[in-house]
Amino acid sequence: MNSFIIHGDICYAADKNTLVTRENGYLVCVDGICKGVFGTVPEQYAHLELREYGGMLVIPGMVDLHIHAPQYAYRGLGMDKELLDWLNTYAFPEESKYSNLNYADKAYTIFTDAIKRSATTRLVVFGTLHREATELLMDKLDKSGMVSYVGKVNMDRNSPDNLREVSAAESLADTERFILNTQHKYKNTAPIITPRFTPSCSDELMRGLGELSKKYGVRVQSHLSENPGEVEWVRELCPWAENYGEAYDRFGLFGKPQKTVMAHCVYSDDNEIARMKENGVFIAHCPASNTNVASGIAPMRKYLELDMNLGLGSDVAGGHSESMFTAMVDALQVSRLYWRLVDQSKKPLNVTEVFYLATKGGGAFFGKVGSFEEGYECDVVILNDSLLPHPQGLSLQERLERAIYLGGDVKAMEAKYCRGNVIIRN
Amino acid sequence: MNSFIIHGDICYAADKNTLVTRENGYLVCVDGICKGVFGTVPEQYAHLELREYGGMLVIPGMVDLHIHAPQYAYRGLGMDKELLDWLNTYAFPEESKYSNLNYADKAYTIFTDAIKRSATTRLVVFGTLHREATELLMDKLDKSGMVSYVGKVNMDRNSPDNLREVSAAESLADTERFILNTQHKYKNTAPIITPRFTPSCSDELMRGLGELSKKYGVRVQSHLSENPGEVEWVRELCPWAENYGEAYDRFGLFGKPQKTVMAHCVYSDDNEIARMKENGVFIAHCPASNTNVASGIAPMRKYLELDMNLGLGSDVAGGHSESMFTAMVDALQVSRLYWRLVDQSKKPLNVTEVFYLATKGGGAFFGKVGSFEEGYECDVVILNDSLLPHPQGLSLQERLERAIYLGGDVKAMEAKYCRGNVIIRN
Repeated sequence: MNSFIIHGDICYAADKNTLVTRENGYLVCVDGICKGVFGTVPEQYAHLELREYGGMLVIPGMVDLHIHAPQYAYRGLGMDKELLDWLNTYAFPEESKYSNLNYADKAYTIFTDAIKRSATTRLVVFGTLHREATELLMDKLDKSGMVSYVGKVNMDRNSPDNLREVSAAESLADTERFILNTQHKYKNTAPIITPRFTPSCSDELMRGLGELSKKYGVRVQSHLSENPGEVEWVRELCPWAENYGEAYDRFGLFGKPQKTVMAHCVYSDDNEIARMKENGVFIAHCPASNTNVASGIAPMRKYLELDMNLGLGSDVAGGHSESMFTAMVDALQVSRLYWRLVDQSKKPLNVTEVFYLATKGGGAFFGKVGSFEEGYECDVVILNDSLLPHPQGLSLQERLERAIYLGGDVKAMEAKYCRGNVIIRN
Repeated sequence: MNSFIIHGDICYAADKNTLVTRENGYLVCVDGICKGVFGTVPEQYAHLELREYGGMLVIPGMVDLHIHAPQYAYRGLGMDKELLDWLNTYAFPEESKYSNLNYADKAYTIFTDAIKRSATTRLVVFGTLHREATELLMDKLDKSGMVSYVGKVNMDRNSPDNLREVSAAESLADTERFILNTQHKYKNTAPIITPRFTPSCSDELMRGLGELSKKYGVRVQSHLSENPGEVEWVRELCPWAENYGEAYDRFGLFGKPQKTVMAHCVYSDDNEIARMKENGVFIAHCPASNTNVASGIAPMRKYLELDMNLGLGSDVAGGHSESMFTAMVDALQVSRLYWRLVDQSKKPLNVTEVFYLATKGGGAFFGKVGSFEEGYECDVVILNDSLLPHPQGLSLQERLERAIYLGGDVKAMEAKYCRGNVIIRN
């Protein structure tokens, strides 16, 4: 079932500086694992089924390192505030609705269907603090065949009454229950420890979450240094921490012992960056969100130069689109404004770099994901870009660049595979 | 034929601060002119045909004040350079192809079809310096039913050999011929004087173009103060001009005697701004382009405070999308980064403001266009936004906001009218 050969015009990023393109290539997938890309079908794979996508773009599935499933319902609304006001005015009231499982069912069905239709194959997801609704979301995501980490959110302070857990102890008990319920239940999804961010979580809660992460070997996601007001607030809340990152690291929630992804990192200082580098923390760069809620622009060139663990996040609904094509374009665009307005020693990102970030860069959080090299899990997106008319021929690299910029216009996702399984096929 | 009533959920911007919304409203169109929006059909119009778009969004057609038709073919390609390098590397080689009428025919068909499918009903268009290809473009645009101004471009210096006119005299003769051929030929399109920008046009050419504009009563479009290197270059080329704008104004190409639209205005100084205000020059704000070619961010809040004549431009292919929804979102986003990174006294734009810019603001260049108030030409776009699922009800204003942000997802343009004529209908 998931051993086959895909024929088409193949592109992937082998590293952040290397785009591999092979027109009329053959991507061999055996038991969901890539065996490589070839100019002709190797003898030993000649018996495999050939799936014909001649003339179409064949690229790795996209990895969304940061997305809020419950916020999908109000994407494109309420984009007129800064982070903290935005949370109180829009995000928190919307998330409080997920205490109602009927609402959650309706909204998470819309969410899962939308991600299925997108180019995303892997995602790291915030739910809400509601355990049952979050488990419902995991049911849906698991069934979709896409691979995800999903977090029941923890919040025990500085949140509205209807979106705050009664105590650290109850929040921890519910989280342990969440882990026990979900850790071995699913094929395609797994739980991830999810303190919303330091302002929403007491030290006691953070300490307990660190212990749960260690006890059950569960990964961690959160937000970091997104907005100046937020950073200042954390300084007041955790006067003992030398920086915001330390407020996670102290509790074992910052890359060690478990892999961790932190969204944003717009205002990380040098010490925080050094700690992230040392601990292998993944940074989810979320350019649309950082623009929409007026946070600023993350110093991605610096992070690339430092060889940090990096990927992209749509951050719906701070970001208004779940499209990772849009995220790539946004990353390109804000890097140009960063160069122009902030620091002309930091050259803008290029297409190969953002393509790498959206695939192999973020994919590393999942393991060998986001490339077509031998041994990588076979996540594939096939785009019929011939539907975008052009008066002349284009090279394969130009077609990829155009597909990224016009992602929203690439109406024909011909097919999407995750781990060699068909997610959608036209 | 173009007298009818549209029933639906109607939104338009009466001014930059006033969004008018009317659920279940009736928009009356008589001979292509709006008679207003009503809660019930007024007696005297009861005999008109009712066109039923119940539950759909009914908004004015969008006005694109700045777009390069010949660059559409390479939109989304070559976005890795600053303006002047970008012109030499990408724009000029592509535009030189339009000496070939077969190529022009193919590319301009693709362009016109794409704009037809978009929400744009009015556009101000750069062609190339090739008169015949530009007239071909006008044939196609006129036939589409959308209303446009189209310019044969003038360039007699600082351009590659295959994209430079032999002399100012020949450029002027060809332009006069262009005007004579097109000024009274079409119902929906008209010529516009189009010096590419000061670096490409000698003083002699500019002087002659000013005379042609005056002699034939033809409007003017060009580029202004887009990029620091360009502004500096103009200072060297025109040492007699106190600013870039003066290099047009001296020759009667800056709002007087004829209406003029200038794209960009990112680096206009106070004197230049004052002259634009005095002369009523329209500014086409092109946020995607200013980001893609790393120009910077235009001070739109300042221009709004000064009550300048303002609209939006897609600026394809400095901008990579012809969608005016995208242009509105880009305008919102860059205004937030401007606030964050440049000047915190300039509050970001809001949805009403960008909706105004994309409709009535830019529409003023065409006359009474871009609103549904009595006397306005009846340009209408109808969006079936029910195709975007949502778990709860939304107010009409929220639906408009969401349609703007998710413009690319609003697959169902149900219908588009220009001057009361059907352009497309599902």
